[in-house]
Amino acid sequence: MTTTVSALSVPDAGKPFETVDLERRDLKPNDVRIKIKYAGICHSDIHQARDEWGAGIFPMTPGHEIIGSVEEVGSDVTTHAVGDTVGVGCFVDSCLECDACKDGEEQFCDQGVVQTYSAKTYDGEVTYGGYSEQVVVRDHFAVKVPDGVDLAGTTPLLCAGITTYAPLVRHGVTEGSRVGVIGMGGLGHVAVKIAAALGAKVTVLSRTDAKKEDGLAFGASEYVATEEKGALKKLRGSFDIILNTVGASVPLDEYLGLLDRGGRMINLGAPSDALEVGAFSLLTMRRAVEGSMVGGLPQTQEMLDFCAEHDITATVEVISADQVDEYYDKVVDGDVRYRAVIDVATLAP
Amino acid sequence: MTTTVSALSVPDAGKPFETVDLERRDLKPNDVRIKIKYAGICHSDIHQARDEWGAGIFPMTPGHEIIGSVEEVGSDVTTHAVGDTVGVGCFVDSCLECDACKDGEEQFCDQGVVQTYSAKTYDGEVTYGGYSEQVVVRDHFAVKVPDGVDLAGTTPLLCAGITTYAPLVRHGVTEGSRVGVIGMGGLGHVAVKIAAALGAKVTVLSRTDAKKEDGLAFGASEYVATEEKGALKKLRGSFDIILNTVGASVPLDEYLGLLDRGGRMINLGAPSDALEVGAFSLLTMRRAVEGSMVGGLPQTQEMLDFCAEHDITATVEVISADQVDEYYDKVVDGDVRYRAVIDVATLAP
Repeated sequence: MTTTVSALSVPDAGKPFETVDLERRDLKPNDVRIKIKYAGICHSDIHQARDEWGAGIFPMTPGHEIIGSVEEVGSDVTTHAVGDTVGVGCFVDSCLECDACKDGEEQFCDQGVVQTYSAKTYDGEVTYGGYSEQVVVRDHFAVKVPDGVDLAGTTPLLCAGITTYAPLVRHGVTEGSRVGVIGMGGLGHVAVKIAAALGAKVTVLSRTDAKKEDGLAFGASEYVATEEKGALKKLRGSFDIILNTVGASVPLDEYLGLLDRGGRMINLGAPSDALEVGAFSLLTMRRAVEGSMVGGLPQTQEMLDFCAEHDITATVEVISADQVDEYYDKVVDGDVRYRAVIDVATLAP
Repeated sequence: MTTTVSALSVPDAGKPFETVDLERRDLKPNDVRIKIKYAGICHSDIHQARDEWGAGIFPMTPGHEIIGSVEEVGSDVTTHAVGDTVGVGCFVDSCLECDACKDGEEQFCDQGVVQTYSAKTYDGEVTYGGYSEQVVVRDHFAVKVPDGVDLAGTTPLLCAGITTYAPLVRHGVTEGSRVGVIGMGGLGHVAVKIAAALGAKVTVLSRTDAKKEDGLAFGASEYVATEEKGALKKLRGSFDIILNTVGASVPLDEYLGLLDRGGRMINLGAPSDALEVGAFSLLTMRRAVEGSMVGGLPQTQEMLDFCAEHDITATVEVISADQVDEYYDKVVDGDVRYRAVIDVATLAP
């Protein structure tokens, strides 16, 4: 037995969305059924719906920034109750027994984490994401949304929030840390807000001045239009951490030069071209280039609590289900200020 | 007034060595004059003598692995006395006032550290290195060589030792850490010895089996001939730290795949081609590529003391001054087991 719900679906790579019927499984003892309120549009949804990373499973229902209310709980569920507001991020199952899972880094599960969509569960069933009226996930993979927060603005935190919070906290960003953020899109604008709330002196490194006012309002101390001649040169050696939130390749060596001794660039984007890094860029100041990918469930909960406490939400445009194709193009063009979130109620037939 | 000493000198990029007269400055109040016993041949000497990194100052007397005895001290010197055995590494002066210097990381001095050779002092005088009967350096830049150690074998530690010790200690390598060492030449063989002494489980990653017996004798638990088909595949996700000691470009993505969650590759070599790194290689396991360059004076002293305590020396071939050209070719061909050290007494006219 399954439950039939409405969902947005891409029939094949790069095709427009259609509204389809999707079957959601009946609850296993540890499952929760979530009635989805909002689903964020992450740039990686677009990469996947257009199969730019390959290995996409079609038809595909994207969406890994999900907030909704618990509609039903399995017989063994003790951590969530009907009516609770919960969030789901990039993955919906893992073994929970390996070292990574025990360390709360389920994203690196030895058995392979089960992605929220375009993936297969350990039973071999295809997963479908949040652009949908409901989702059923194992209880461990739903986090509690703190009371009183703005739900639409909190939705993108399930991916953009944890992706930026995790490396900032891991590297001890605190009062006075000097943080540069390359790109101020969906990820970048959340990075600015979180880094500022951690006490860092944040500099936005954006191509043009177009988002300057917003950047400063989000908490940045400085905003640098990198296209301006000589702009980067002035910043040499001035950061402890640079978060590179840009999906496309950027001239890494130039940005590495902006790091002070022992500084690190955290690469959050996933360009398909190889990164090119001069050996001397790293050697000369003991610099590092590091990859970082979301975060585990305990830290996702910690991040949501932190953001609630500091009044941090993503700055969003709430859109209806029939605007998703249009907004995919806008995301790629950098035209969304700053994250699009689907009001899932508009999916109802 | 200066003192004239014999030295080996390359008149121009790539030319054979000549024995020349070199002037060493009279002592300033903080200087020590060192009568050199041994000078190691580091691969970077060859890069510089052949001007492969550009900006070489010719004629050039290389040599930044130096051990000798104090011959004379300036009026303000309290830390060294005539007759002490001391070592000099890659640099001979820095401002000692900036944050990096105060943190004991003089190699990253804001004013620019003064390299031991092919560089200019703050007074604008060209520096000449250890392939020479004497050297005069500021007292702070001479470290104490512990009593009773083998001097020839200890000489390479002034560069190869600190270069490998610093990143291992910085990343907390200890009992049970899983360390891979790419390449077992001058740097690599010292890395194996030091990592093993720190308690790590060390795996040598060398192209062929040729050095297997030595690798295990140096303390490695495993030795993998990377040219063998499928050899690397078996090692996926099995290291916390990989030290890349190879100057030439290696297929980084393949080696990055050998790192476990949060693992880091420390790049010690300095290939002139850019390093190519797939974004996913870093993202998927929160991996990092980091550069590391020697270490500061306090840590150099700590390293020498550690090596003395653990009976670690480089495995060396002691050669005479007239063999240096020949050994430059042997180093490039990987034919030295494992570091050539010049007996400077053979320089005497």
